[in-house]
Amino acid sequence: MTMANAFGVGDFERLSAAEQSMITRRERVLGPAYRLFYERPLHFVRGEGVWLYDAEGRAYLDAYNNVASIGHGNPAVLEAIARQAETLNTHTRYLHENILDYAEALTATCPDELSQVMFTCTGSEANDLAVRIARSHTGGTGIIVTAHAYHGVTATVAAFSPSLGPNVDLGTHVRTVAAPDPSLPAEQMEAAFADGVKAAIADLKRHGIKPAMLIVDTIFSSDGVIPGHAGFLKPAVEAIRTAGGIFVADEVQPGFGRTGEAMWGFQRHGVVPDLVTTGKPMGNGYPVAGLIARPEMIAEFGKNSRYFNTFGGNPVAAAAGMAVLRFIKDQDLIAHTRDVGTHFLRGLEALKTRFQGIGDIRGAGLFIGADIVESGRPSASLAARIVNGLRERQVLISASGPDANVLKIRPPLVFTRDHADQFLDALEQTLSAM
Amino acid sequence: MTMANAFGVGDFERLSAAEQSMITRRERVLGPAYRLFYERPLHFVRGEGVWLYDAEGRAYLDAYNNVASIGHGNPAVLEAIARQAETLNTHTRYLHENILDYAEALTATCPDELSQVMFTCTGSEANDLAVRIARSHTGGTGIIVTAHAYHGVTATVAAFSPSLGPNVDLGTHVRTVAAPDPSLPAEQMEAAFADGVKAAIADLKRHGIKPAMLIVDTIFSSDGVIPGHAGFLKPAVEAIRTAGGIFVADEVQPGFGRTGEAMWGFQRHGVVPDLVTTGKPMGNGYPVAGLIARPEMIAEFGKNSRYFNTFGGNPVAAAAGMAVLRFIKDQDLIAHTRDVGTHFLRGLEALKTRFQGIGDIRGAGLFIGADIVESGRPSASLAARIVNGLRERQVLISASGPDANVLKIRPPLVFTRDHADQFLDALEQTLSAM
Repeated sequence: MTMANAFGVGDFERLSAAEQSMITRRERVLGPAYRLFYERPLHFVRGEGVWLYDAEGRAYLDAYNNVASIGHGNPAVLEAIARQAETLNTHTRYLHENILDYAEALTATCPDELSQVMFTCTGSEANDLAVRIARSHTGGTGIIVTAHAYHGVTATVAAFSPSLGPNVDLGTHVRTVAAPDPSLPAEQMEAAFADGVKAAIADLKRHGIKPAMLIVDTIFSSDGVIPGHAGFLKPAVEAIRTAGGIFVADEVQPGFGRTGEAMWGFQRHGVVPDLVTTGKPMGNGYPVAGLIARPEMIAEFGKNSRYFNTFGGNPVAAAAGMAVLRFIKDQDLIAHTRDVGTHFLRGLEALKTRFQGIGDIRGAGLFIGADIVESGRPSASLAARIVNGLRERQVLISASGPDANVLKIRPPLVFTRDHADQFLDALEQTLSAM
Repeated sequence: MTMANAFGVGDFERLSAAEQSMITRRERVLGPAYRLFYERPLHFVRGEGVWLYDAEGRAYLDAYNNVASIGHGNPAVLEAIARQAETLNTHTRYLHENILDYAEALTATCPDELSQVMFTCTGSEANDLAVRIARSHTGGTGIIVTAHAYHGVTATVAAFSPSLGPNVDLGTHVRTVAAPDPSLPAEQMEAAFADGVKAAIADLKRHGIKPAMLIVDTIFSSDGVIPGHAGFLKPAVEAIRTAGGIFVADEVQPGFGRTGEAMWGFQRHGVVPDLVTTGKPMGNGYPVAGLIARPEMIAEFGKNSRYFNTFGGNPVAAAAGMAVLRFIKDQDLIAHTRDVGTHFLRGLEALKTRFQGIGDIRGAGLFIGADIVESGRPSASLAARIVNGLRERQVLISASGPDANVLKIRPPLVFTRDHADQFLDALEQTLSAM
């Protein structure tokens, strides 16, 4: 079903009676659109830091969850949520300090141009709002994304999320471009991506569609994790602006320090987006997301349309978000992420010299992609065996990319060098056992 | 800007320096799409039960917030959230008991046919998902809503939420029908509404558009609160089904016992929807929402499209939802709501005999609409003066309806007869002072 690392029906018989019972209940009451990870799905009952514990008390090293980015059960966030929830939880049509303090702190992490925030509950809602704003600002409707992009699940956003698979139609106003090719030298990579965007713009115009926006995940997570050469986005951004469209940076995955080089993925590229969308790690698990904007982008939209998101930016969400920002700053977490990420990459490079199944390795901070190949070609089946082999060794990651052959390593940012070493040991054992 | 009870720029000079400062910060950092309630906006710092407290410690009787439906700071919900958040907060791609227990408890409140749930974070997302499912199941795209409907703020849902005002375009595949007219006798009301739906279906077909769904808020909140004659929905539901479309009940406002007659608004009408969407009161403030479905509606969708909502239905959301359901049941809250609502309506009827500004009064449980009229015609300005007069007397409601002249009274369900009497006293004083 075009999802890497999904539990399949064929795996059912191998499970315990308790697991089978839960899966049967899921199918009965949640229906067919829900998916589970792994050949042997996991049933977690507790989380702490970088560890998840299953029902039998086994500890799993979490190298995949980017929502609990500052650690499962981070006490600072728990306390902020509990304190505010028992004090007051209303909405944005009453005045409240929290949303103002948090919005100011959040925009302070961005270039000066990005000075306004609108709050939603999910990254999908943030990207959906970006579409409404882009249409209003540009008068266009055309949307350009990468070939295996994922931006969310609303009807509008699913229509420009090709990684959802061939059964989810793309909009007639949507064009895809090949993701940046990490195997090319810097200049060629940059030119090829910009040429793709220009061709998409031309094709939109040829069909009478005015371009509204280019949106990319600034580390191209679902395209297979493509961090660099940092800077390669610039000409593509210029191209969409020249054509009257805007540039939207989807920071749901790379944002909040994950790349170890900056707070935001777009900063690595030296561009200032027109809109920035964010979500997952923003409240370390509390549902909060948002859109950061150049004021001129939302001026017209705001004049014509009120925007009210009942839970979005409520005092508890703002308290959770503020606790996350403070933790990142107080712990100097971006520098930590860079350090551990560098160590992690070095270890992977060392394994690569010994195991021919590992192809290209790419990363920025604690977002790492490792191509898995057989006879030099992408191998989804080998990647799946590695992902499931790691799971058997109590280490959690998943696979990504159009060929589902890229190991996607994206641990909480509180991951240490020791944790990276534990991961590398488990990977070595997994590869050795094949 | 087509929003009743919105703070306007002209009101700014009358505010305190502290209020002006917060509003200036809001405009600077949140931008122009955010709106505040009241001529003199409120700055709340604490909430408890049916009371909100402003920065000066003044207590306001909350007769409007339906999110904190079982009371601001309800301890049972706070405890459930805190306990689960410190234990584990992951997502639906691992097995967890909470989502299964909650989904089973939630569907148990519905007719047997509605046996599956999908979780989102907001009512907007739930209605957006309903569109994706309706399209998949019917192969159609046409959507029928009432003339002043509100269903949410995603791009897709805003396009069938005419109450957002003339600057937010409706989709070319959207048709509006006049809301049920409460001034008509039962049979005529029923027939007129069904005829409207049939005409909309015919018009869609005349334009080559296959109908996908009829969606209504089952108490027509934004159309001015139209509870009855309960049962009038039946022929309209039959009409959309005959045309190959499905019926979606938007229970974001009437759901979870508010009408005092049943758990869900559609149950008052004796119909079983194909999809039910819900949100606001579901987690008493924790961001959780969802869609309850007949399994045959989502079979095709689930086969073709995986659905993953990062925060939707996570263990904390499910714990919050479960605490709300338990509270409603343990406190026999639906019966309480019916009792207090009846008392409340009686008091309003008594005031109506003394104040000619009060026109038709309608209600079900603790969802009450009161038309405000001058010389027998809808008066938005008198309604606004009453809403702001109540605010000065520390009682919170708002206005609704296409003419913005309907007092919308929608307190937390833990409202008592005493609270209703306090409200009625304040309303009497407000009306007497005019």
